Amino acid sequence: MSQPLTVSPGTKIHLKDFDARFVAGDWKKKSAAKQIEENTAISGELAYKLYAENQRALLLVLQGMDTAGKDGTIRTVMTGINPQSCHITSFKQPSQAELDHDFLWRIHKAVPPRGEIGIFNRSHYGDVLVVRVHNLVPKEEWKSRYERINEFEQLLVEGKVTIVKCYLHISKEEQRERLQARLDNPKKRWKFSMGDLAERKLWDEYQRAYEDALTLCNTKHAPWHIVPSDRKWYRNMVVSGILREALEKMNPQVPPSEPGLDGIVVE
Amino acid sequence: MSQPLTVSPGTKIHLKDFDARFVAGDWKKKSAAKQIEENTAISGELAYKLYAENQRALLLVLQGMDTAGKDGTIRTVMTGINPQSCHITSFKQPSQAELDHDFLWRIHKAVPPRGEIGIFNRSHYGDVLVVRVHNLVPKEEWKSRYERINEFEQLLVEGKVTIVKCYLHISKEEQRERLQARLDNPKKRWKFSMGDLAERKLWDEYQRAYEDALTLCNTKHAPWHIVPSDRKWYRNMVVSGILREALEKMNPQVPPSEPGLDGIVVE
Repeated sequence: MSQPLTVSPGTKIHLKDFDARFVAGDWKKKSAAKQIEENTAISGELAYKLYAENQRALLLVLQGMDTAGKDGTIRTVMTGINPQSCHITSFKQPSQAELDHDFLWRIHKAVPPRGEIGIFNRSHYGDVLVVRVHNLVPKEEWKSRYERINEFEQLLVEGKVTIVKCYLHISKEEQRERLQARLDNPKKRWKFSMGDLAERKLWDEYQRAYEDALTLCNTKHAPWHIVPSDRKWYRNMVVSGILREALEKMNPQVPPSEPGLDGIVVE
Repeated sequence: MSQPLTVSPGTKIHLKDFDARFVAGDWKKKSAAKQIEENTAISGELAYKLYAENQRALLLVLQGMDTAGKDGTIRTVMTGINPQSCHITSFKQPSQAELDHDFLWRIHKAVPPRGEIGIFNRSHYGDVLVVRVHNLVPKEEWKSRYERINEFEQLLVEGKVTIVKCYLHISKEEQRERLQARLDNPKKRWKFSMGDLAERKLWDEYQRAYEDALTLCNTKHAPWHIVPSDRKWYRNMVVSGILREALEKMNPQVPPSEPGLDGIVVE
């Protein structure tokens, strides 16, 4: 029993081949909680070093169907990271001013600067997902976006931004349960709108759009991770682990102090 | 033994009258820790409601001499608040593009939108502090800024932004100890620069500039809080309490859910 988190660039992704309830090995909620704690503690230290080093940045892109758990994932992975060196951008419906530019204009502005971690709650991928499913721009236009996205991400990587992309993969049944839970919980009901059900009717179209985004933009410089997300605890463990590994690979270094500071006494 | 956190608008502030080591009542580190926990838990719930309500915003402005503990305060007050509804802006030396505009231009861009909490680590007050102490603009220019700031803050308040301003008040001796500690700790030494000592030499000039900012911009719509900050635990308790009270006073309400959701079953 195993399931890859990443696949080789060029491989056609069929989401039905990925089990959203998958759990590797014998991970349980309790052992995962310990692992999450370790992951976030280490990521917190590395984020501090990244900030001190001030040479590179990390961008975590989170995508997923409604209720996939982007918000919950962000709360988990942020734990332990100094919020001053980590900025979250939630991409909602674009404003008129944003629509008056190319689709990457507003995204580019939100790319994290050196020393920081940026988290995108939704992203430029919306421009080949919701935009495509709802025919917000003609096919000729969104068709070329996969290539534009790959080129844009290449630009960021060359600008020393490590890109970590996670697709939070939930099953249609799990989404049903989560939407129903929102409806049934008086405290959460304000989050629910009839529009959520209309979007759910387009499940298959969204899955097809995701498959294309995951296939066509799964590059060597910015690969996709397909995270089994029906179990929240497993999803949180996996994403916190991916972030930790990315930071470990970057291996940021606290810069040397100014020379000549030995023996200085502050008056 | 008591010391006001706020003074009436119009009162001339003399910082030497404010004891930076002050502790009210019989607060101790341990009892303060419990209070901080309560404050942040309640602020977290209220921040969630503020976000759900999506009608108003809160802006927390933190100022203080070097090493006063702006970063540590932010880490504490952020605890329990969903990082997605809370954005921190650290104002560093302005860029050339920013200098090509009026001094409030870059500040205005960073004001939190409805539903969110914004935290300013330094702020527009830098333009009457470091700018004044180092004569970066002529006196005629910075002299009028106090009034411009009051007017700008009035604009924000009318735009439904509650402004909470905290001056983290430390003593000169406490700063000496903290700078020395940075020098002596190999892990923290990278943060130290000889420039810190040069700034420290201007202590009195900075205190005078702060006194003017605290006096002239202590308005009814955006009053200053003078927070005794030599003891970190006390500072954290006070600021987390000020934030909690401001949110309690705002009393944000989760909006009603869409009508007609009763009995809906998700398919």
